[in-house]
Amino acid sequence: MFRNITIIGSGSWATALVKIFSESGIHISWVVRDAALAEQIQECARNTRYLSYVDLNLDFVNPTVDLERAIHSSEMVIFALPSAYLSQAAEAIDPAWIVKKQVVVSIKGFVPGTAMVPSIFIQKKFGLVKPVMVIGGPCHAEEIAIKRNTYVTIAGTDTTNADRLKNSIQVKYINGIVNNDPSGVEYVAILKNIIGIATGIAAGLNYGENFIAVLVSNAMREVNRFLRSVNLLYRDVFDSAYFGDMLVTAYSDLSRNRTLGKLIGRGIKVSQALQAMEMVAEGYRASEELYVLTKNSELHLPIITSVYRILHQHASAFHEFKLIEKQLR
Amino acid sequence: MFRNITIIGSGSWATALVKIFSESGIHISWVVRDAALAEQIQECARNTRYLSYVDLNLDFVNPTVDLERAIHSSEMVIFALPSAYLSQAAEAIDPAWIVKKQVVVSIKGFVPGTAMVPSIFIQKKFGLVKPVMVIGGPCHAEEIAIKRNTYVTIAGTDTTNADRLKNSIQVKYINGIVNNDPSGVEYVAILKNIIGIATGIAAGLNYGENFIAVLVSNAMREVNRFLRSVNLLYRDVFDSAYFGDMLVTAYSDLSRNRTLGKLIGRGIKVSQALQAMEMVAEGYRASEELYVLTKNSELHLPIITSVYRILHQHASAFHEFKLIEKQLR
Repeated sequence: MFRNITIIGSGSWATALVKIFSESGIHISWVVRDAALAEQIQECARNTRYLSYVDLNLDFVNPTVDLERAIHSSEMVIFALPSAYLSQAAEAIDPAWIVKKQVVVSIKGFVPGTAMVPSIFIQKKFGLVKPVMVIGGPCHAEEIAIKRNTYVTIAGTDTTNADRLKNSIQVKYINGIVNNDPSGVEYVAILKNIIGIATGIAAGLNYGENFIAVLVSNAMREVNRFLRSVNLLYRDVFDSAYFGDMLVTAYSDLSRNRTLGKLIGRGIKVSQALQAMEMVAEGYRASEELYVLTKNSELHLPIITSVYRILHQHASAFHEFKLIEKQLR
Repeated sequence: MFRNITIIGSGSWATALVKIFSESGIHISWVVRDAALAEQIQECARNTRYLSYVDLNLDFVNPTVDLERAIHSSEMVIFALPSAYLSQAAEAIDPAWIVKKQVVVSIKGFVPGTAMVPSIFIQKKFGLVKPVMVIGGPCHAEEIAIKRNTYVTIAGTDTTNADRLKNSIQVKYINGIVNNDPSGVEYVAILKNIIGIATGIAAGLNYGENFIAVLVSNAMREVNRFLRSVNLLYRDVFDSAYFGDMLVTAYSDLSRNRTLGKLIGRGIKVSQALQAMEMVAEGYRASEELYVLTKNSELHLPIITSVYRILHQHASAFHEFKLIEKQLR
């Protein structure tokens, strides 16, 4: 069991993690964006900005902006903020504070400008003693908020540590599944958002369920191909961490990526669709970063590449999907 | 190209096939249930009972009840009726009429009382010269009716023949995918209905998307395990025929099986839920037949077995899903 931890991040996913760990009886130093928010949380016993309907038990939750003190008092530090802010948050941390701690990341997306997944970025940045662990899906924070039964993936190359983290979660509606492939889990969390945009575009273009089922089958092949290119670990692709996580985004109307895709499929310009979204659709940036990462490889990723062209090169969604149609099998 | 074919069956799937083949310029002897329906189709140029909004071109469609004459004038005979009626339909056919024809089945479910998939039943029953082919999903007939882009699987051990059938389909919204595993495709079409009931029950019990994604991941493992026990063909599980077909049922609100499961999950008695459904949910019978087929095997099929117990042994959906929860990973 971990007894004292730090969670860094103020969004809905960080809030869901605070809920899970505090209900497990773990003391949390919750490092939020600014002092005003920390005060509000202290006052209202809830995050007034995200998942504000979730009550938090302040006996276990200490909202703060003091990173050094938070980390100092914790055995474990969880980064749970949008990937866009990770680099900045890491800059504010002295490696000496954190080098011997167990660090966990639970972040979807590449670290901008690095083409690195968060676990690798953090490991390098701080020269950590223990390997970074990853908390992954499949899960919508919104469903955890209302205590719906959820399986979270806890990935670490040292599975004893991953088991320890799993056993620290003591709430009935959460089941931990241990996995030994942290970066694979992170890549899937990136790819699924791109695939989520693809299924959204298909729906917006008025393709039906028959087509989308085949689209997702083929997308899973692309994910598989990509994962094999990253490392040759044996993976059961039907592990919840991979396949389940894909499904929860590809078929979910809760997915922001799918919503973004739908708008674009219906003919809204990409720039306008992005503006219309209240929250960031992570797949938008991810598709560009993945393109950069893979463009010189020989990987065959037709769906992922089409999404990139639609989002970033003004390609017509209609025409790209006509091309995709011919390649599905 | 096939030029003259017989299609046997009057339901929505048979109607969708009549639409596809007649629009491809193939002459169809359409053997329907009774003379009254044949007359209605002749009069209205549509199937008045199923997909009645679909116009049919009578230049290519000849509704009839005369099996012998229909088969005599055809190179190919497609069985596309509910599995419950296949045995009776086959009894009405003299093997001599059909033994040299190319026979195709497009039927979901075991042939009742035989534990055989339709392709094997028909092959044995008639001692056919050419191996039976299978037309499979993923597809909802309702989407074909409105010309939504759809991939159909054409499975045959002789892929040259399968290619020929594929090339006979000349409508823009249909893409054929050739596959060499006809009985595997039929088994998946059976299993997906059981899994569809399982996801429906989960939704009815108020589990959310997080859980259902993990449930389907695990169900795919059971499907895989079962298919390997049938034969050791190499299969790309992400072929549309397997995975896509599962998805289109497991995640579709158009699925009758999912609807049946939802009613049961909400607490409606199985018998009442079955009565409330206008059309047969194929997974109901299938779950019993599959249970009989596998109960003495060592296959680990916890989700499929729970569905059987809920549907056929008065087990509580709530309790069975508590058991399933513990086994998912």
